[in-house]
Amino acid sequence: MDHIKIFSPATVANVSCGYDVLGFCLDSVGDEMIIHKISEKGVKISKIDGYDLPYEIEKNVAGVSALAMYEALQPDCGFDIEIYKKIKPGSGIGSSSASAAGSVFGMNELLGRPLNKTELTKYALKGEALASQCEHADNLAPAIFGGFTLVRSVDPIDVLQLPTLGDLFATLIHPQIEIKTSESRAILPKNVALKDAITQWSNVGSLVHALHTNDYDILSKSLNDTIAEPHRKQLIPHFDSLKGEVIKAGALGCGISGSGPSIFALSHGEKMAKEVEKTMQNVYSKTEIPFYTFISKVNSQGIKIL
Amino acid sequence: MDHIKIFSPATVANVSCGYDVLGFCLDSVGDEMIIHKISEKGVKISKIDGYDLPYEIEKNVAGVSALAMYEALQPDCGFDIEIYKKIKPGSGIGSSSASAAGSVFGMNELLGRPLNKTELTKYALKGEALASQCEHADNLAPAIFGGFTLVRSVDPIDVLQLPTLGDLFATLIHPQIEIKTSESRAILPKNVALKDAITQWSNVGSLVHALHTNDYDILSKSLNDTIAEPHRKQLIPHFDSLKGEVIKAGALGCGISGSGPSIFALSHGEKMAKEVEKTMQNVYSKTEIPFYTFISKVNSQGIKIL
Repeated sequence: MDHIKIFSPATVANVSCGYDVLGFCLDSVGDEMIIHKISEKGVKISKIDGYDLPYEIEKNVAGVSALAMYEALQPDCGFDIEIYKKIKPGSGIGSSSASAAGSVFGMNELLGRPLNKTELTKYALKGEALASQCEHADNLAPAIFGGFTLVRSVDPIDVLQLPTLGDLFATLIHPQIEIKTSESRAILPKNVALKDAITQWSNVGSLVHALHTNDYDILSKSLNDTIAEPHRKQLIPHFDSLKGEVIKAGALGCGISGSGPSIFALSHGEKMAKEVEKTMQNVYSKTEIPFYTFISKVNSQGIKIL
Repeated sequence: MDHIKIFSPATVANVSCGYDVLGFCLDSVGDEMIIHKISEKGVKISKIDGYDLPYEIEKNVAGVSALAMYEALQPDCGFDIEIYKKIKPGSGIGSSSASAAGSVFGMNELLGRPLNKTELTKYALKGEALASQCEHADNLAPAIFGGFTLVRSVDPIDVLQLPTLGDLFATLIHPQIEIKTSESRAILPKNVALKDAITQWSNVGSLVHALHTNDYDILSKSLNDTIAEPHRKQLIPHFDSLKGEVIKAGALGCGISGSGPSIFALSHGEKMAKEVEKTMQNVYSKTEIPFYTFISKVNSQGIKIL
């Protein structure tokens, strides 16, 4: 095998109650990448389609992660990466993570899988760090492991792969406004009320329980965020009214995807996810803000070979 | 059936990472109670053995919970309660919860089980509130439901029953010092660092995952408390050295039971739990503080009919 084409999915980090630790993987939106094994040593990017991103390896998240893995493994070959970028950078659905994870996943396949998923996450983290100025894996882990993940630690990497409910669908809306991850992090207080933190860990525990017991009702009750959402929602116009309508329409829960501006909802079944999408469109159509929406099954596999 | 004899178990609240929400049920230590259905209306306590506790219904936790349930159901009979108190009040292993839960459980059995476990918890909470000046259910829930529990909410009562690992044993040491629950609560800050809270909810999530996947290794990694233990341990002499030795001996984890002063450890298998008990005895024998220790399987049933 001298080249491989892969789909590296968008992801939703935090999942309301799980700030900095939980995430899940989407299926209908993701970057495509073609990675070639070449005789010339080193890593290069020969094509970037879709968005204007740097070709210099050290400035490109897919390049940085690829280089970190390449230097560690020192294989007897080189790699040429083509990136067909479909996830808009800065949308809050793990655009940089998809790129960072895709290159190392593809190279690992071409080398005969010397690395496991935890090791891939370690190198992908180097690319993610370039994009977000800190090493966090709550988007990387679901992209690489699939389904729902809980990141226990990034140093060393410790990811728990959680089960996924069989009929769980996500609806996403991306209001076309810019929120910098750094701004979205800075808006959070360094200290939080103990009573709010207790509610949060109660919800994380019950969300994990819901995933293991296939319980949509408990999942729904767990999808609340007492920590980040109350601060971050002010960065997203019409968040409260959209969330209110989405819950009224029948979604299990609704929250900010990662650090925003995208908003996610989870629904039991595809039909409800489509209802929720219509609701989101109705709310945002009345505003001046451009947006797009999509629905996706939760992807239990993660990155796929096409 | 005109009377019933029950065993109402001791419990461990918080379980390191789950302050205010997690708890598990013990099997070898608990109160015994005999409850008689009598023709004379009302609730009375006719015998208290073991510790000097009030016979007045309104001042006794078992009486208060019994009365709350009695007034709600208004049955065509009365109840006479005998309490054989084996759990020392103030030891931190759910002494008041065992009494509060036992009376309502026994009455419910004698009435043909009109109430479910959630409803029993609601009335038991009234007794617990008398003892601790606040309605918390992290000891009541494991006593009534058995195994591990996660209390999502007390108003309304919302308890998740979590699975238990098959071969999980607890070792307890009760240093004979007095810590008031109010003092132990007052020592906690009203605000906590976000980064510590994140670690805590990561651990709660992974502990629930460990219980569902029967994974002793992940359970062990989850048994850490970044919130309460750093403050409360100063109330318990020799806590750090005892915990250090217990972990070195092979326990999965070790922490403060509820608000203390009892300390619990969890171990894989009875043999290790006994090793851990010896270790605890060795550490505390070198001090001037009287203590007792015991081991117990995790009780997946909760209150039992004898």
